[in-house]
Amino acid sequence: MYTLIGNPKNRSFRVLWALEELGVPYEIEPEQPQSAGMRAANPSGKAPALRVDDEILIDSVAIVQFLADRHGDLSHAPGSVARAKQDSLLHFALDDFDGSAWTLAKHSFVFPEALRQKDAIRDGVSWDLTRAYAAFQARVGDGPWLSGERFTVADIITVHCAQWLSRASQVPQCEALTQLVERAVARPAYQRADAIRQAA
Amino acid sequence: MYTLIGNPKNRSFRVLWALEELGVPYEIEPEQPQSAGMRAANPSGKAPALRVDDEILIDSVAIVQFLADRHGDLSHAPGSVARAKQDSLLHFALDDFDGSAWTLAKHSFVFPEALRQKDAIRDGVSWDLTRAYAAFQARVGDGPWLSGERFTVADIITVHCAQWLSRASQVPQCEALTQLVERAVARPAYQRADAIRQAA
Repeated sequence: MYTLIGNPKNRSFRVLWALEELGVPYEIEPEQPQSAGMRAANPSGKAPALRVDDEILIDSVAIVQFLADRHGDLSHAPGSVARAKQDSLLHFALDDFDGSAWTLAKHSFVFPEALRQKDAIRDGVSWDLTRAYAAFQARVGDGPWLSGERFTVADIITVHCAQWLSRASQVPQCEALTQLVERAVARPAYQRADAIRQAA
Repeated sequence: MYTLIGNPKNRSFRVLWALEELGVPYEIEPEQPQSAGMRAANPSGKAPALRVDDEILIDSVAIVQFLADRHGDLSHAPGSVARAKQDSLLHFALDDFDGSAWTLAKHSFVFPEALRQKDAIRDGVSWDLTRAYAAFQARVGDGPWLSGERFTVADIITVHCAQWLSRASQVPQCEALTQLVERAVARPAYQRADAIRQAA
């Protein structure tokens, strides 16, 4: 049994979605970031955490990849060329999409108010994202997923990053990314996870 | 046979170090970023790339993890709790150390000059790194490596990030990180890789 610790409205959703894709039993402890319960699981207070037997795992990407490898789904085999390509797309999403989303978040609500430079950083973020969308468009193949026929961890993380950018008013200007999100949100596992998120 | 494509003075060093740790045969094509040869391997022009048989892999972290899993060293087993913890430390280094190093780089030489806001972002980066060093110090165990007795991909990436921060005049103010770097650079494989880097 897995216990997802964290509010499904934040990055915990990545883990929730993976659990629904895998069809494994789990329960949710809907802790808010920085709550006493969240800090008991992760001293930094960040969500999500996953309780596995008597161990606590943290970091949404590490947890989703752990679940994928443990259950032999959502991923190519470790050490294969296909996995290296899957991982390079995963890191592209983390570096280029999540990185920009985090920069916007830091200067909107994470940093103490005196350190926020939202106007100063805006054009740099836009320049970065424009290049990232072009690179993404050039890299993706015929689909339907980033790794071809197999839906993987890279798809989950990329789609979640695109959704976060949209919420930060940076709607992705990238046809390949928009199409990926449209296909992904039609998956039954996404729909189930999203219903849980909406109700949270 | 592996062919490392890229100048060992940049992120290609991560792959070079891993190849030396694993003791596998390889050759180097010392392409500069954005050279015609580098763009032939990776259309974005970024280093490193790795040629494996007739395949080209990109992204330093994806390549190092690929090599580790392929040769059964420098990593815990995929799907294990130990691997999830290794991966969460790897992502910590990427999010919190590499992320800050990249922010400094973007505003120093990556962005077009008109978009650089080096003075505006400096205090935010310092605030971020101060928190990251405290979190890192609290997370690391008794060592000698991040995953205990086993030297892993997480150590290679964390040490390389720390060195890059030092070069960007952000010498890590974190005893645990300083000690990790000191132990790592004493490894024979690091020494061999560093000699190749110095001569490049």
